[in-house]
Amino acid sequence: MRQYFDSQLKELNKSLQNMGSLCEDCITCATQALLTGSSELGDKAIELEHETDICEREIQSLCMKILYTQQPVARDLKTVSAALKMITDLERIGDQGSDIAELLRHTSIDIRSNSSHIAAMADATIKMVTGSVDAFVRHDAQLAVQVARQDDEVDALFTQVKDDVLNMITSGEKHDRNFAEQVLDTLMIAKYLERIGDHAVNVTEAVRMGLGETEEN
Amino acid sequence: MRQYFDSQLKELNKSLQNMGSLCEDCITCATQALLTGSSELGDKAIELEHETDICEREIQSLCMKILYTQQPVARDLKTVSAALKMITDLERIGDQGSDIAELLRHTSIDIRSNSSHIAAMADATIKMVTGSVDAFVRHDAQLAVQVARQDDEVDALFTQVKDDVLNMITSGEKHDRNFAEQVLDTLMIAKYLERIGDHAVNVTEAVRMGLGETEEN
Repeated sequence: MRQYFDSQLKELNKSLQNMGSLCEDCITCATQALLTGSSELGDKAIELEHETDICEREIQSLCMKILYTQQPVARDLKTVSAALKMITDLERIGDQGSDIAELLRHTSIDIRSNSSHIAAMADATIKMVTGSVDAFVRHDAQLAVQVARQDDEVDALFTQVKDDVLNMITSGEKHDRNFAEQVLDTLMIAKYLERIGDHAVNVTEAVRMGLGETEEN
Repeated sequence: MRQYFDSQLKELNKSLQNMGSLCEDCITCATQALLTGSSELGDKAIELEHETDICEREIQSLCMKILYTQQPVARDLKTVSAALKMITDLERIGDQGSDIAELLRHTSIDIRSNSSHIAAMADATIKMVTGSVDAFVRHDAQLAVQVARQDDEVDALFTQVKDDVLNMITSGEKHDRNFAEQVLDTLMIAKYLERIGDHAVNVTEAVRMGLGETEEN
């Protein structure tokens, strides 16, 4: 029985790694679409988001199967709870990536010229997602803590992008509609990136919970 | 055994109703804070959001307990899965309500003068949240379908608010920083309301799933 249980936990671990890397790819495509203007990469991000959704449902089913066939306790129950927590945030990260890609489909936004900080923000955010997935794969609680700390940088960059956007509106020039749309889209994208950072923090918390580092449910 | 199981399911149902009404209260306070400028209502919304978080964790624990002590199948398993799906979206609705309240803390926004559509959007959104919770309480699949349809109205109102905001930016007047901040905050609040509508749709889907109306997991 324990042998079968261990193989189920191994399967869960493998599925989580798979979902984590899908999610990383989704965000990479979305941010690259943002920085390069490639519509193919945007389409790819949306496609990858659908795959993360499927993954989430499969892992959720597997967790439930483990719960009601194995009735895990203590450490094992914590692993399953952490998995359920982790997939929720990975799925939300995928959603935000897809939102960025969707927005790019309907905009002629030249993101770099609108805010010099958005590229740095995209980089910092993707580093957080990759770091949080790495922390899970390597069972590295210390890395999880480090990644969570990087969220301050992402938040500070959001404030700077907002500042760039405010400066554009108050520049004193007459603004046409296309310009105004670009301004609003820039802010919206920064907001999506900021949210991705928040969810990456949640992933690191799930990682620490799975490693028995926190008492959180 | 079945008797104990039924009492657990009854407890689950009661807890879900409680979380639903907390969530309704949270959104009501947040939108009322938005429309009246009352900081007390904003604080109350943030407080209620913390309560929905606690509720979510308690219901999650209860669902897991049911799963691993009762190993439910068929209809009962669907009820528990639907509950888990529902609390995720109720919690997200609370988050967006709290986000609105947080934003109001740091802004001198006069929302009605910025967009004539935002009050209608707040009303339509709260109607969706209330309707989705009602559909759950009354086991009313038809109401669930009706509520989901109302999301088109919320989406259309979002487009109108965005249009109002675009018109403000392109009005040709010289904009000061305070004005620019209000413009951006108005858009952000509309985005939070639009997201609340999306989550209310998800709640209606969980309701229909719990009633065995959909095949979704």
